[in-house]
Amino acid sequence: MKQYIRYEEQGKPHYGQVTPEGVYGLEGPPWHEIQPTGWMGQLEDLKILTPVEPSKIICIGVNYADHAAERGSDVPKEPVLFLKPPSTLIGPDDSIRYPPQSQHVDYEGELAVVIGKRIFCPDPVQARQAIFGYVIANDVTARDLQRSDEQWTRGKGFDTFCPVGPVINVDVDLGSREIETRLNGEAKQRSNVSNMVFDVEYLVHYCAQVMTLLPGDIILTGTPSGVGPMTPGDTVEVEIEGFGVLRNFIVAPGE
Amino acid sequence: MKQYIRYEEQGKPHYGQVTPEGVYGLEGPPWHEIQPTGWMGQLEDLKILTPVEPSKIICIGVNYADHAAERGSDVPKEPVLFLKPPSTLIGPDDSIRYPPQSQHVDYEGELAVVIGKRIFCPDPVQARQAIFGYVIANDVTARDLQRSDEQWTRGKGFDTFCPVGPVINVDVDLGSREIETRLNGEAKQRSNVSNMVFDVEYLVHYCAQVMTLLPGDIILTGTPSGVGPMTPGDTVEVEIEGFGVLRNFIVAPGE
Repeated sequence: MKQYIRYEEQGKPHYGQVTPEGVYGLEGPPWHEIQPTGWMGQLEDLKILTPVEPSKIICIGVNYADHAAERGSDVPKEPVLFLKPPSTLIGPDDSIRYPPQSQHVDYEGELAVVIGKRIFCPDPVQARQAIFGYVIANDVTARDLQRSDEQWTRGKGFDTFCPVGPVINVDVDLGSREIETRLNGEAKQRSNVSNMVFDVEYLVHYCAQVMTLLPGDIILTGTPSGVGPMTPGDTVEVEIEGFGVLRNFIVAPGE
Repeated sequence: MKQYIRYEEQGKPHYGQVTPEGVYGLEGPPWHEIQPTGWMGQLEDLKILTPVEPSKIICIGVNYADHAAERGSDVPKEPVLFLKPPSTLIGPDDSIRYPPQSQHVDYEGELAVVIGKRIFCPDPVQARQAIFGYVIANDVTARDLQRSDEQWTRGKGFDTFCPVGPVINVDVDLGSREIETRLNGEAKQRSNVSNMVFDVEYLVHYCAQVMTLLPGDIILTGTPSGVGPMTPGDTVEVEIEGFGVLRNFIVAPGE
């Protein structure tokens, strides 16, 4: 397994590779040629940024049968696609800002796929080869606005509503990794990525029949059951076995 | 009124200002400082590109009362927001590719707002000042998939489904300009931008309460009544009085 991050150094963002000896700086995104800069630092000294800069954030709705059941809907026959704007992105330890328009903001812990190649209408093998790696994400949702609006764009589209990180995990077998979301340390969502209705390869192939996927684009693959509300002052953590922990803090509007 | 375009010259994209004498090349996007390059050419010699490179394309659904009536829905109490991915963008005279997944692809002629400043939660005056100009757009829609999917993302998100152009019109009063969509020369949609349910300033203000708007982002403001299907071989034109004509061609999958 290889792990890549994005970090801030002297006020500028850089990509880096995480190794047991430390973090090696890279000339550009790791889905391009891996070219070390010669810089090296220690992970604990760095401000870690979200590791992706996607042109688009594709999300999949209702992709775990238990989450379909808790929301009272059927398992969809085809993937349900929606988009979050890039302005929703934040990194690990950044704050999720509670919007004044909502009285009910939920966590949704998810596995996200990072695209490494430009693809449009690939065959299934090309679609699989276009997967660069995996990262943890939180599809933060203003549930009241999602329900009241005809479309989910507003309820899922507020600034800070897409924490992603901390690392991109490459050359890994997804297998049956556990996924868990904790609110103030208490486990709220507990499932396994093997419980997805549509697996990651199917999802990449499906999305790429609609829109050109570009390197750095991400696909959030849906959340298991156990979604629930957060309030200012809370700490939310999403963990996927072997992939680290994505932790964020909820703050009141204007904070 | 000032008019700006983006064009290709020696294989590279440039922004330019359109004047009676010709097109002046600019060092960067016109919403930044206007810095001429010294290059000048004639409009008719240039390959015109879509004049914007948005980080996000926000669209407003059901923003004309007559279109609400034809689709059998009420006029919404608040703007209906959805997103098209940047991969939908094409320029004037480019081809709209009919996706094999759909049997019913509609035109939707629209006015689009071009954002000139970074704003988040502005007051109404700041929201108005963040409008750089206006451009013509076509919110191409696979109507059958829009209806069958829970969300509109797929039906409105195919590559080539967002023609925008030809020019950005700046320092203009929107007033009561006519908007018309023609299919193979025949008028199909005919309305006036003054018929919008929510006007452009309201929409910019509303969207910027949700997400940070960036220079070059666009907001498609909704379509009037008269939407209807296109088939491969068709030519679709959207015209807004004084803003030019946005023409595109429909081609079969794989063409």
